[in-house]
Parts: sequence; structure tokens; C-alpha cells
Amino acid sequence: MRHFLTLFGLSGCRLSVPVSVFSTCRRFSQEFFKAEVVKSSRKVKAPRGKLIPTFSKKFSARISDYLKNMASPEIEKELAPLRAAVKESGELVRSLKENGATKIDIDRAVIELKARKKKLEERELALAPKEAAFDRLKLEDLLKRRFFYDQSFAIYGGVTGLYDFGPMGCAIKANMIHLWRNHFILEENMLEVDCSVLTPEPVLKSSGHVDRFSDWMVKDVKTGECFRADHLIKNQAEKIMKDKHTTDETKEALKDVLARLEGFDDKDMREVIHEFHMKSPITGNDLTEPIAFNLMFPTVIGPTGDFKAFLRPETAQGIFVNFKRLLEFNQGKLPFAAAQIGSGFRNEISPRQGLIRVREFTMCEIEHFVDPANKDHPKFQKVKNVQLTLFSACNQMDGQPAVVKSIGQAVAEGTVANETLGYYMVRVYQYLIKVGIDPRRLRFRQHLANEMAHYAKDCWDAEILTSYGWIECVGNADRACFDLDQHFKATNVKLTAEKKLDEPKTVLVTEVVPNMALLGKKFKAKAKLIASKLSQFSNREAEEAATSLEKNNSLSVMLDDEEEKMDSTMVSIRRFEKKVHVEEITPSVIEPSFGIGRIMYAVLEHAFRQREGDEQRNFLALSPLIAPIKCSILPISANAKLVPILDAVQDVLRAHEISFKQDDSSGSIGRRYARTDEIGIPFGITVDFESEKEPWTVTLRYALTMEQVRLKVSELGQAVSDLSSQRMTWKEAQTKYPKFEANADS
Amino acid sequence: MRHFLTLFGLSGCRLSVPVSVFSTCRRFSQEFFKAEVVKSSRKVKAPRGKLIPTFSKKFSARISDYLKNMASPEIEKELAPLRAAVKESGELVRSLKENGATKIDIDRAVIELKARKKKLEERELALAPKEAAFDRLKLEDLLKRRFFYDQSFAIYGGVTGLYDFGPMGCAIKANMIHLWRNHFILEENMLEVDCSVLTPEPVLKSSGHVDRFSDWMVKDVKTGECFRADHLIKNQAEKIMKDKHTTDETKEALKDVLARLEGFDDKDMREVIHEFHMKSPITGNDLTEPIAFNLMFPTVIGPTGDFKAFLRPETAQGIFVNFKRLLEFNQGKLPFAAAQIGSGFRNEISPRQGLIRVREFTMCEIEHFVDPANKDHPKFQKVKNVQLTLFSACNQMDGQPAVVKSIGQAVAEGTVANETLGYYMVRVYQYLIKVGIDPRRLRFRQHLANEMAHYAKDCWDAEILTSYGWIECVGNADRACFDLDQHFKATNVKLTAEKKLDEPKTVLVTEVVPNMALLGKKFKAKAKLIASKLSQFSNREAEEAATSLEKNNSLSVMLDDEEEKMDSTMVSIRRFEKKVHVEEITPSVIEPSFGIGRIMYAVLEHAFRQREGDEQRNFLALSPLIAPIKCSILPISANAKLVPILDAVQDVLRAHEISFKQDDSSGSIGRRYARTDEIGIPFGITVDFESEKEPWTVTLRYALTMEQVRLKVSELGQAVSDLSSQRMTWKEAQTKYPKFEANADS
Repeated sequence: MRHFLTLFGLSGCRLSVPVSVFSTCRRFSQEFFKAEVVKSSRKVKAPRGKLIPTFSKKFSARISDYLKNMASPEIEKELAPLRAAVKESGELVRSLKENGATKIDIDRAVIELKARKKKLEERELALAPKEAAFDRLKLEDLLKRRFFYDQSFAIYGGVTGLYDFGPMGCAIKANMIHLWRNHFILEENMLEVDCSVLTPEPVLKSSGHVDRFSDWMVKDVKTGECFRADHLIKNQAEKIMKDKHTTDETKEALKDVLARLEGFDDKDMREVIHEFHMKSPITGNDLTEPIAFNLMFPTVIGPTGDFKAFLRPETAQGIFVNFKRLLEFNQGKLPFAAAQIGSGFRNEISPRQGLIRVREFTMCEIEHFVDPANKDHPKFQKVKNVQLTLFSACNQMDGQPAVVKSIGQAVAEGTVANETLGYYMVRVYQYLIKVGIDPRRLRFRQHLANEMAHYAKDCWDAEILTSYGWIECVGNADRACFDLDQHFKATNVKLTAEKKLDEPKTVLVTEVVPNMALLGKKFKAKAKLIASKLSQFSNREAEEAATSLEKNNSLSVMLDDEEEKMDSTMVSIRRFEKKVHVEEITPSVIEPSFGIGRIMYAVLEHAFRQREGDEQRNFLALSPLIAPIKCSILPISANAKLVPILDAVQDVLRAHEISFKQDDSSGSIGRRYARTDEIGIPFGITVDFESEKEPWTVTLRYALTMEQVRLKVSELGQAVSDLSSQRMTWKEAQTKYPKFEANADS
Repeated sequence: MRHFLTLFGLSGCRLSVPVSVFSTCRRFSQEFFKAEVVKSSRKVKAPRGKLIPTFSKKFSARISDYLKNMASPEIEKELAPLRAAVKESGELVRSLKENGATKIDIDRAVIELKARKKKLEERELALAPKEAAFDRLKLEDLLKRRFFYDQSFAIYGGVTGLYDFGPMGCAIKANMIHLWRNHFILEENMLEVDCSVLTPEPVLKSSGHVDRFSDWMVKDVKTGECFRADHLIKNQAEKIMKDKHTTDETKEALKDVLARLEGFDDKDMREVIHEFHMKSPITGNDLTEPIAFNLMFPTVIGPTGDFKAFLRPETAQGIFVNFKRLLEFNQGKLPFAAAQIGSGFRNEISPRQGLIRVREFTMCEIEHFVDPANKDHPKFQKVKNVQLTLFSACNQMDGQPAVVKSIGQAVAEGTVANETLGYYMVRVYQYLIKVGIDPRRLRFRQHLANEMAHYAKDCWDAEILTSYGWIECVGNADRACFDLDQHFKATNVKLTAEKKLDEPKTVLVTEVVPNMALLGKKFKAKAKLIASKLSQFSNREAEEAATSLEKNNSLSVMLDDEEEKMDSTMVSIRRFEKKVHVEEITPSVIEPSFGIGRIMYAVLEHAFRQREGDEQRNFLALSPLIAPIKCSILPISANAKLVPILDAVQDVLRAHEISFKQDDSSGSIGRRYARTDEIGIPFGITVDFESEKEPWTVTLRYALTMEQVRLKVSELGQAVSDLSSQRMTWKEAQTKYPKFEANADS
């Protein structure tokens, strides 16, 4: 189920081999990686060949897991013989045990096994990219402690799947949305709308959500506790496979289950639960059969209690039901794109995984309406050479890795269905890099046939690698004309556009012609509105009007919920032949759909760093574009002489609309810097005793490299503004202003 | 009911006499008024003493109504004798009729009555300010036609009280929110949060919403149709009063009902409905007794169906439940303010009045936490001379008009309760003027005792005069410590801050002291977190821990939903005396709460204008700060020679991040300007054949005055950027660049 809307379906951890890609706009992230130093890589590099320091099992397991997700073919080649050696040795131990060999022989074999395991582990550690050592607990501690976000209503015991964003999280989110609006809405001249969250049942019946937007759940037969069926099967299968007593045969069978799980229906799940004797993980009780649970939050509108509604599960439907107004706003022309930024709601069965799976989330959705016969994009030429990591359905099924390819080639080969879809994939890629996603941990995965809705033409998810595995963050789908068609069927309101015909053709037209004098006499000021209504009648409506006039000598139109009645003195029917130069078409829709919370979480993971030589000093290497605060101000002492300089610095920053945070606390300057680094403030201003000399100067520090320059207060506003908006690089600032050497961080 | 949360209670149309106020920042709006020309004022001015053109009854009634809402004492003085003369003449006619006078006498008296009525009407028209002629239908037509906003789900029949914002409305709303964020959050260093809409029932039980957030409704006993009781009484009373057959006595009684209606409880309403035989306005059927209807939208979280929740009716509660985190973020210091921008939901019984009364709306709320013993504000001195129109509770009860007074004086006299509340009233005033509210149509009305919650100290609503009457748009309340106290009572989590004592005092302290060695042995990495938890124990918690250790040799703490157990080897209890320098206090809360949709609607009404000499040409005189698009680009012809210039213009605007709309359509330039004026685009660039001469130039037109200047394309970006952000006035631009004379608008 749920396959027809897949943005928030976690794709799990597929084996695949993405290759580092070269981005056009990762100037900033490259700098970040230089500064990225992790203890494991340092400690491992040094002793090569000597004694390797031991790491916790958990740490090694993390590295190993990461490599399975993200190994390059080169790394795989190096590790394969080592893995084979471990396997061989393990088999020897087992057979010795089974054959009742002597303790000495077994011990000797076990020592050899351990040595081989150690060798594999060492090699894994040596080869692993630095981010593999990422420790989620440390990041989570930071995010909680400095209130980026935290569980909602915690003092009332909290609600799973609901999060409140504190000042830092809120500012990052606002910056991400601001960038999104500039990157998509302004640059592409999209029509932004802001529609209601409350949505009447019939709208979501048409869209298919009422009938099909569900997950399968199973209940503990005794306690009634609910579990999402696929998650339960996955967890229990993994547990059984880890059990020493499980036979190889069972392991193979479960491996097969996990591979096919995403396509399972209720029957498949029931069989698996039965076959492998799966029980409630909490009580050990039996489980019910899988039950469909609709993921929408129900409510009622108005006081009578019979107007059923739901909280929207996506913002897209608000755009579709406004299609006519938007087309008119665009003066009837195709193609055009509408966009919406707003909240979506999904009543997850048992959400876990922090911001990855939540019940209330911010979405940014684009619906690009285009002629189904021509999905070329005018700006495709500009982006056709951009390289993306593409994990096609074919490669997934053939067990082949993802490949790096230009979008031009992918569309030409038919891997990506059309130019418009391809154009948006590039724009999505550019946005994700801009907000700070590591391009090496970003890929586009095509939906398999069984994941995609029957009407969809093609679908590519932008997936980001995090400690939760590859996470779907942006869905990019060609939805064809499904949604507009469905709403037309339900409402009988035509959701079509006019397309110029190559050759005109002759058709029979029926019109309702108003007698304005009589209409004016009866309806006064409203007459014009009524005439305008009549002129908008379709052929079919005009024919219905003709019938109504003939039969009842009456015709009524609705005007602001009031029925206005006319008779045949006020209107007449006119029929004539007409040459038409246009035909009506139902546009196709290309939809990129962003989950902002997921992207934000991935950005935070990719930005999390430790200072070289000080493992306790974590910091966030956020792009200045999304950093919650652009600049800190630290007075070197509480001396009153510094106050006028501090005021001048604040004034100049305010004049340039730069957000800042002054820290007057008594801690050492290094300690205060550490506090600002931790929340991702990229630039720091120190007012010291040298500042007093006319003209006043301050030092400016770049958090990532901890380097400093000295500049005049009068130059400060423009400099920080240019650095924050990336109009100037730190390198450029370093050539422009003198270096400041005193190591304030120590 | 509902009195304890009054932001969205429509205050109705009170008689009052606000006087024009002098704003510190209405440079822009003053310019607007110069250009504001309305047919009535022109036509009336000219013929003074000659024959007056006739106006429709509706138009005259509108003027008369407006004056009742907004007459100054001077206007009232002029109109009073004319009104008395009409009354006298009317009484004469009635007595003649009653006494069976001759037809000739009666006719003569009627002619005199008509003449006197006409004289009053003429005087009203002459004295009325231009905005009194405002025609809501014309504005609504424009807003619908150009898709500023429109009813949601209209193709499904629509839902009352739900609106979708189109591209223009969406952009204005985004600009208003952007300004709000700068004006409040950035300038005042507030802590912004973004909390969940879904809110568990216990939270809203504490806040009082579950029990008291209701309106009284009555039902048609046969059809079950629901009506909001107070609205039904108001409408029916007005209808009965207009009826010719109604006695003076009944009219007086109903006048009294209307005056007291806002304070009515269910018993009062039942009596009135019964006494005046009020029926369903639709069917004429009898009505039920008033029933309390809770205005929150109910839903359930999770699959079991027993976790009750509501959509939040206000954003404030999200801030209160996060108080501890926010205080910690502010390093424990008071005062501080938190702010939230987000959706609120209220299930109105039968919403009407467009954006004024809706079921889903954007709110901006500030909760300023302050020491209850000292509500002074450090920046109050900066604003104390700002003059506000204040309509105090005393003046309302004494039938006195609103008065203009400096906020310094108002606080000193005790009219406004404290500096912090007064400071925010000024900041609210400044924001409203900035977005385009006419200061003459803005007042602060104090809540009467029966409107205010028992716990509230003082409350002043910023009310804006629109064609719906005076509308409450921003509530400014001192809520004391009510909310924090309520949540503390429900959760037992202390929501207090520490305040420095003037003199230290001695107290007995109990602490739980961890044995880190043993704790580390058992809990490994978690030991530190556990120790940190223990160190946060309050005295009471430590004493409970002591008891638990003594009785059961066991102490447990919760860590991420898991219970961690310790025995007395791992922790010990320490008791000692301590000198304390701080005491715990529950902060008071000052809350400004904004309804963005209402303010936006008022801004649109105040900005709606007609061109002098062309009544059909309506336009929106929006401040450039909130205009949906800052600039239009109009090529004078489709000639290809102009294309490179157009591209250069677009590039320079994009480089300055200025939103623009190019209109290539074939209409005359004047017609195209009219189209852009209509949607409030303040600046227009025309590329004409003179543009080609090197260096390229264009004309720049100011929509409000239709004046034009000519400037180089290279100067354009900075000029439009400065004009749009109001760093430069149009006057300044006119002195800087040469005037362009060709009247493109004709």
C-alpha cells in the first residue's frame, strides 16, 4: 500500500556503490572536508603496521555498516579477500567443533579467526571515510542541549513523532525555506499558493488517500498494542538472523523476505509472521492479522458533526483544486509551475528515528503543469552537463551499483523519462548541495515498478545517506494527469488547458446570450456578474441551459451561494459553427516534493565535526547561508571602555540585517568561541584592547578554520554580509584584510 | 464564555470618537492620502450650495454608518442640529397622521421632512472622509479576480471559513511575516520557536480550552441547523428594530440587549430569544436552548484511537510548555521574550465576513516573560513620547470618546498597567503603520472587566476600522502567571526562574552524590548522563530519592524512556546548610497576539483607491515593503531590438533580489500599467525606443502618482532596491533622476 505516495516511505539500506561526484557548487563543502578530522582516521593512519589501538565493538560495527552502504568498488576490492579469509576461518572453527576436534586444535583455529577478523577490521578502519565514524548520540546530545529541536509536550510525557523547534532549529528551518523560495519560486517564476490544512473528505477520496493511504499494522492480541507490520517483520527477521541457533536455511529465507518486504501485501506479511513464529516484541504474545490503518488525521468541520475532514497528508492537492485559478492567473498559458510551502500530517503507527519519521512536518511541493505531448524544458540545455549519481531501476534489479552520469545523457538514453523531470532533478541536486548536503552522500534512486503508482510515468527519489541509512528526502515524480483527472471526475469541473492546434477545425457551438436590458432591470449591479457567468458556460452547460429553458422556461445560476433565476425573456440560446484553433488538454504534472525536516536532519549530520586534537569539542560546520546566527560578538573583557565599540559593531550589523549574538559571559574567549562553534555560528567578532585605537578595529574569526583577520569596524558590515551570503570566500577575505595571529581559541 | 481568549472575538461597532493621530513613521501613508481621490468627495465639493447629485440609498447609508463609527467631535457638532431637525419633522408627520390631519397638511409636512433629510445627507457627504465611500464589493471583485485569495475547495462546493491564498496574497502574507520577524524577533532579540499543531488533550485541559473555549449556539429544532447564539440575537434584534410595526418600547429594550450582548450568558440569551420570539432565520422554526459548542477541532493521535488531541487554537501554549528549555537557552536570565509564527484553528459555528472570521489562520504571538514584581522595560524611555489613540475601559463606560495620549503619560497615570505592556503597544502600533494601516483608523481599546479573564491584569486590543466596523487585530494582554501555573499544577514540573535576593538566606539542601567509578562500571557511556540527571534533582526529588534508597535500596532515573536503576553503593545522600542568593519566581507573561489575516484584509481595504477622473480604474496603494511584486517590466513593443535591454534589466533586478513581473502582452502601455497598479506593484519599468541609445536607459514609474523618471539600466538595481525598502523616497528619486514626461498612462 502507500506506494502511490512515497515521499515518506523510508527506503531502508540497500547495498549499492555510489561514487564521489563532482558538484558545480560545492566550494563551501570542500573547505569543510579539509577541516574534518575524526579520531579514528588519525589514530589509524599513524601506527600503520604497528600495534593498532582497539576500538569499541560498537564503533567497529558502525564503520563496517557504513562501508556496506557506501563502499566504492575500489574499497570493495580491497576488502573482499579479507572477508573471504574470515569466512574460511569461521567455517573451519565450526567444522572442528562439529567433528569433536581437540580443544587445542579448536583454540588454535579460533586465534587464527580472531587475527583475520582483526585484520579486516583494521583495513575497514583505514579505508573508511571520516564520516563513517559519526556518532549519532553526540549529535543528538548537542541538538537537545542547545535546543535545536526536542520532543513536543515533554513536560506532559511527550508525544512520539512530534517535535518542537527551538530558536536554533527554527532559524535554520527559516533559512532553508528562504533559500528554497529564492531557488525555486523566484528563479523559476513559480506561482506560490498557501492553501488550507483542513481538507474535506471528498477531496481526499478523489485523490485516493481515503482508500489507499494506509500502512498495515498488527496488534498484540492481548494488550492491543499496535506495530507497523513491515517494521515488525524487518526487526524480528534481523533478530532471528543474528541468533546463533538459526539455521543457514532460515537465514537465507529471511534474507529473501527482507529483499522483497517493500512489495509485500497483507497476505505475504501474514504468511511470514506465521511461518517464522513472530510475536509481539514487548510481551511475546500472538499478533493479529495485518489490518489496514489509514494514516490521515480525521476531524470534523462545523458544529453538526457530519462534515468529515482530514488534515492534509500533502500540500499537493491544494494546488490541484486551484488549477483553474492558477491557469487563469498565468493568462491561460502552459507550462507553469505552482509551489506550496506548508505543513503536512501523517498519523504514523509508531514513529521513531527522530526527524526522519514524524507526524507533523513541513513540506515544499512543486506541481509543474506541462503539455503531456511535449515535456521538453526550455532551460534543460543549461543544465544538461550536470553529473548526478543515478541508481536506476535496472541497476537495482541487476545488482549493479549507482552510476555517475550527465542528466543530458540520462534523458537521451531514456533512463530519466523526460527533460522536465531531468531539469528538476538537477535543480533539486543544486538546492541540496547549497544547504550543505555532502554530494558524496547523495543519490537519485529510481522507483521499481512495484513501488510506483500505476499512473506514474517515472519517479526518482533524492536519497541522502545518514546514520539511519539512505533516506528519501525529495520525491521527483511524473504523475501524468492522474490528479487533475480525478478531481474532474468528482466535481465535473473541467481542469484543462487550451493548446493551439496545428490546423484549425470546425465545431458546433452553443451559447447563452443575455438580454442585458432585462437582466439589468431584475438584477441591478449583479447583472454583469451573471452575464459573465453565462459567458463562461461550456458547450455542455449551454446545452443543459437550453433544455432547462425549453422545459421549464427557467435558468438558474449560482452567485455567491445564492440561486439567481432567469426566464427566456432575459436569455436566449444561440447555436453556430465555429472554426477552432485550440484543443483542450489535461496537463501532465511533474512533482518535486521536499521533506524539509529530513533534509535538515541530514544537513546537521553532514555538518557535525570534531576539532582535531580535542575530541570533546564538537561543532557544526554549517554553510553560512543556513547558519541560524551569522555572527557572534565577544568582548575580551567587561571593561566599560569597550562598550561604545560594541555598540558601534551592533549598529553596523543591524544596518546590514545580519543576525548576531553577543556573549558577555565571563568564560575564557576560547570557551565562548567553542559555545558559538557548537551552534554553527560561522563568523566571530572579538573586541579587544587594540580595538580602541582610532580607527576602531576588531578581529573576525572563521569558525571552520579558526583563522582570524583584523579589520575596521566601518568595513565590518559589508564584509560579514558578503561572507554570509557567499559573495566573498574566506580566502578572499584573508587576502583583503591583515591576518590576526593571537590564538584566541587556546 | 470565550472571554479569556479574545483575539478573535469581533468587538462589533462601538460608538466612539477617535481623533487623527500623528505617527512617527507614516511618511508613506501620508503620500498615499494625497493621491486618494474618491468620486463622492469630488462631486460634493464642487457644487456646494448648488444642486447636489443624488447618490444611491446604499451609498448614503454607508456614509452615515461610517460617520457613526468614526465621527470626530467637530463633525458631530455640525451634524447634531441637522439630526434634531429631521427628528422634529418626523415626529410632526407622525402626530399629524395619528390625529387624522388633512392630506394637504400631511403632504406639506412630508415635503419638509424630505428636505431636512436631504440637508443632513448632503452635510454628511460633505464632511465624510474619503474612505467612507469605500465599496467592499469592488475590492472583493478585484481580490477574487486577481487571485489574492479565494474560498478553499470551491470546485467541491467550498467550505465556509477556509481560504486559499493565491500568488499575490501569498506574497503579501510572506512579506508581512518577514517584516514581523525583523520588527520583533530580530530587533528585540526574541527566541523564536516552531511547535506542533497537534496538541494532546491534557495540555489544553490545563490551559482552560477544553472546558471554556466555546461559543453558545442554538439549533433549529426541526432541521438541526446551527446558529451562533449571539450573532443570531444581534441580527434578529436589528431586523425587529427596523420593522415599522415595532413599538418604541420594544426598540428601546432591544437597544439595551445589543449594548449588553457581549456579556450575556446562556440564561440571558435564552430569555431574549424567548421574549422577542426569535426563530430560525431560514425556516422560521423554533430554536433550542443555547448549547455550549467547543471551538477546537478534535482528532486522535496514533492507531489505538484513545489518544485524544486537538488542533491548537493558539500558538501560545507551545511556548509555555517549552518555558524551561527557553529559560535555559537564555542562560537562566529574565526577562526574555519568545515568539511563534504559525497556524491556529478554530471551529467557528458559522463563519462569515471573509478573512475576518476564519477556521484556519496564521498567528504571530509573543510571550514576554518578566519578573512579576518589576514590569519596567529597559527601552520604554525610547518610546514614551509616542502618541496612541487609547479607548480606556473608563471612557467606554462613561460614554466618553477615545483620546490621544503619549504612552508615557498613560503608564504614569495607570491607564496602561505597566511599561512592558505599554512598550509592546507602541511596537504593535509601529508595525501596523509600517505594513500600511491608516493611523486614523487604528485605536487601542481596553477590555472591560466582564471581557477580561479573572487572572488577567490588563488587556488592550489594537482595533482597526474597516467596512466591517472596528475589528480586533492584535490582542495585548498581561496574563500574569496563569499559564505557567496551570501547566505546573498539571505536570508537577516547576516552571520558575531564579531571582537574585537582596540579602542571602540560609536553607537546608539535600543532594544525591554519584559514585562515578561504580556508576561508570555499570552504565558505561550513560553514566555521565545519569550523573547529570542526578545533579538536576530539586530538593524535593533528592529527599524522595533518599527515602527510596532507605526503603528499597534502589533509586531509578528515566533516560530516554528507559528506567536506569542504582543502589546505595552507586549513590549517596548528602545534606547540608547553604546560603542562597536567589529565590524561585513564576514569571508574569505579557502577550501581544497578532491575527495576520485580519491585518492583511484591513491593509487591503485601507490601500484600495480609485484614479481621479476614472472611477473604473481601481488600484492598490500598497507600501512597497509588503507589495507582492516590487516592479513590473513593460516593453513598449515586441521589437526584437528591445530583447537584450529587457534581459539586462532582468539581470540587474535579479542581482538585487527584486521580485518583478514582465508583461509582454499586446495591450496598450496604459492598459498594462492599469493591470499592474491593480495588484499593487509600486514601480514600473518601461523599455522604449529611446532605451537603445548608449548607455541604455529606461523609464521608472511610481504607481501612486503615475510620475516617471528616466535612468540608466546600470543605476536601476540600486534605485529600485532603495525605493522598495524605503531607504529612498520617490521625491528623492525625482531630484536624482530626470523627469520623463510622456504620459504613458493615457
